[in-house]
Amino acid sequence: MIRTLIKGGACFALTLVLLGAMRVDSSAAKPNVIIIFADDLGYGDLGCYGSPIIRTPNLDRMAAEGIRFTDFYSASEVCSPSRAALLTGRYPIRSGMCGNRRVLFPNSEGGLPAAEITLAEALKEKGYATAHVGKWHLGIHEGSRPLDQGFDHSFGLPYSNDMDGRAGLPKGSSGSATPPEDGWNVPLLRDGEIIEQPAVQTTLTRRYTEEAVKFIQEKKEGPFFLYFAHTFPHVPLFASPAFKDKSRAGIFGDAVEELDWSVGQVLDSLRKEGIAENTLVFFTSDNGPWLIMGNQGGSAGPLKDGKGSTWEGGMRVPGIAWMPGRIKPAVTTMMTNAMDIYPTALALSGAEKPAGVKLDGEDLAPLLFEAKTLPERPFFYYRGDQLFACRLGEWKMHFKTQTGYGQPKPESHTPPLLFHLGRDPSEKRDVAADHPEVIARLQAAVDAHVAGVVPGKPQFE
Amino acid sequence: MIRTLIKGGACFALTLVLLGAMRVDSSAAKPNVIIIFADDLGYGDLGCYGSPIIRTPNLDRMAAEGIRFTDFYSASEVCSPSRAALLTGRYPIRSGMCGNRRVLFPNSEGGLPAAEITLAEALKEKGYATAHVGKWHLGIHEGSRPLDQGFDHSFGLPYSNDMDGRAGLPKGSSGSATPPEDGWNVPLLRDGEIIEQPAVQTTLTRRYTEEAVKFIQEKKEGPFFLYFAHTFPHVPLFASPAFKDKSRAGIFGDAVEELDWSVGQVLDSLRKEGIAENTLVFFTSDNGPWLIMGNQGGSAGPLKDGKGSTWEGGMRVPGIAWMPGRIKPAVTTMMTNAMDIYPTALALSGAEKPAGVKLDGEDLAPLLFEAKTLPERPFFYYRGDQLFACRLGEWKMHFKTQTGYGQPKPESHTPPLLFHLGRDPSEKRDVAADHPEVIARLQAAVDAHVAGVVPGKPQFE
Repeated sequence: MIRTLIKGGACFALTLVLLGAMRVDSSAAKPNVIIIFADDLGYGDLGCYGSPIIRTPNLDRMAAEGIRFTDFYSASEVCSPSRAALLTGRYPIRSGMCGNRRVLFPNSEGGLPAAEITLAEALKEKGYATAHVGKWHLGIHEGSRPLDQGFDHSFGLPYSNDMDGRAGLPKGSSGSATPPEDGWNVPLLRDGEIIEQPAVQTTLTRRYTEEAVKFIQEKKEGPFFLYFAHTFPHVPLFASPAFKDKSRAGIFGDAVEELDWSVGQVLDSLRKEGIAENTLVFFTSDNGPWLIMGNQGGSAGPLKDGKGSTWEGGMRVPGIAWMPGRIKPAVTTMMTNAMDIYPTALALSGAEKPAGVKLDGEDLAPLLFEAKTLPERPFFYYRGDQLFACRLGEWKMHFKTQTGYGQPKPESHTPPLLFHLGRDPSEKRDVAADHPEVIARLQAAVDAHVAGVVPGKPQFE
Repeated sequence: MIRTLIKGGACFALTLVLLGAMRVDSSAAKPNVIIIFADDLGYGDLGCYGSPIIRTPNLDRMAAEGIRFTDFYSASEVCSPSRAALLTGRYPIRSGMCGNRRVLFPNSEGGLPAAEITLAEALKEKGYATAHVGKWHLGIHEGSRPLDQGFDHSFGLPYSNDMDGRAGLPKGSSGSATPPEDGWNVPLLRDGEIIEQPAVQTTLTRRYTEEAVKFIQEKKEGPFFLYFAHTFPHVPLFASPAFKDKSRAGIFGDAVEELDWSVGQVLDSLRKEGIAENTLVFFTSDNGPWLIMGNQGGSAGPLKDGKGSTWEGGMRVPGIAWMPGRIKPAVTTMMTNAMDIYPTALALSGAEKPAGVKLDGEDLAPLLFEAKTLPERPFFYYRGDQLFACRLGEWKMHFKTQTGYGQPKPESHTPPLLFHLGRDPSEKRDVAADHPEVIARLQAAVDAHVAGVVPGKPQFE
């Protein structure tokens, strides 16, 4: 009787060991990674970030189930550099993906250098299926295109949806919500081939979403990496009939509410396929709201200025990480940025960091999965290839400032401006005179950073 | 067999009828009502309203379980009038509780007229136990005090915590976060008697909370009405040791985080006593943030200006309604205001509206309990006894504007300014010239309102 019990116990223990091993095996399955990237969505444009006018129930739910970041930064105040940094984990200055011309235009000859190792390339090495859906804006020439940069599939626009006007605007111009005389002429590409020109923008969000969900369904055995870079709410704004004129905020609100629907579709498809627990989804925006667009631009909420500026509103953006069961719901004030996604995804996949490459992001795993505090580190605010400001802890120091659009030249500050972003998130009260020791600490961080930067060959000139 | 079945059916039906009757009896138990009123808390100062710096997990949970209002207004841009409107359901102009002097001061001779029927008086008539905890600021003379205005119990300060400075400030002055030479001298009263002077403000939020929870526990058989009007985050700011220096936003953040804790204690006590489902809790603020206080003032988030102004930031405030099981979780953009709480509570209690009294609020029951749309109605923005602006639907028209503090005289606008608060919640883009028909509609609403207002005897002069 005793022996039987013992045998039974041993058998039970063995079963536990086997189950444990299976569990280890199962959790060792490489997690999928999805980045959902909005275009010109401001800090204040989602319900969960306090928008009084736009309804975003899907993103609000994602935030409630995941981690919502109050202090998440894009690595640039404009589009192309921000995307380069996201996909390389590096400040754009290192890849040359920044400059006076601000972003790539259809007539630009440069693009993301082939030598850069994108997140798609790094994950592909580890057996990931990779897809790009949506806006690219990292170059249209050989070496820089999605399929050249590690993506198996690509469906979307080569650059911003206001570029390549057919008439009225010279080729390569940008910066208006007003259509050229005979409409926009941006092409829609599949795997590098034009399949529609002009792209029908009204149904773009819906078609992007269908493409993304199809990829998830096809690759559900995993692992996969999906880079879903929305075209909206960048001007010109369009929305499907189901969303047109439905928000109280006009076409801007309509477009964001459709984007929110799209996020819901993606998360639902993960739940439906039973892979939500094994998929890290990161939602963020490429830069702050394009304020000069008025009703067709978004809002930075309580933050100062918007797109094109190194004031907080230009670079602090919504950030939500979601992985049910792995990420415990929280709101975090920890300072993080879009370049952190690269090493975080790499670590999840089991990949080593690329040898000989200086990464600027940090693995967020301790914060995401163990609610731990990350070591303090500085963040650097570049406008083009110029370093304008630095943040360390709650302190932000500006050497130069320039509004997003409208101020023709930067203003230099000697001594620099200093703001405490905890007590003064709207950057209203310069307290440099009271804190020379803080200025010195930030200056030291800047000096160390600048000494370590080898600028890449400028791609925008 | 058939007869038995029929009999059984009839018996079953009878049981259902009885159960139904019991259910009706049970739901007919008069619901309790709690109003939690913050002081100078801005639209952007809670996590669920997008604060990047203040953690309010209890209010965020209250919002997630209840209805969060994006367009909820205080009836005034400053303290005493706002409180008068809340407790009477009427614009302050009708009770005379407004004027050039803005609020009541310790040397004011006026106060809320005894003839006004407060919510406490109306509910007391229906058998409610009533308590006031916290700031009063509706008068210190006979007829105006809490026990004169329908409250069985009262514990708190007679006016703002920056009033009645012992020295340094003349008696009756206000408006500074800097303490007079020998400290603040505001008294703490219980049932009209001074029990502590100066009130020890560090522990005020904790002691208010204990008082509120004790009342709930003692009156849990119901029905009861608790008016819990916090002293903070009005300056001077204090926080208990458990909250001091804990927020990233300095003492302002500490005070709001302690207020959030307090809300959690109140809701927890309702849950613990099993009366949460039969208690309507309304959380809001008396006016917008006191912006001239700098780090010690709050934030209106994306809204313009703050306390003392009829720009949105002065009067649009957080609003959360909570009644688990009765209120279905939602975010609503429906325009509502603090004067609506009076008729809503009255209807819940089964009381009739007071005869011969012009109420300005509307019963929110259809919105709260049935998710119905309320009929469109105008809202009027007064600064003191002057009508400055009107809102109807998404449109807001200003005849006069004046910043909260700093602009010495109002600016008149002919033609008026017009803003679309859906597309332009920050009131940046005047579109009056494009919408003469809207101006005409709003003007008609204003004319009808003005024709119906009989100003009460001024109480502040």
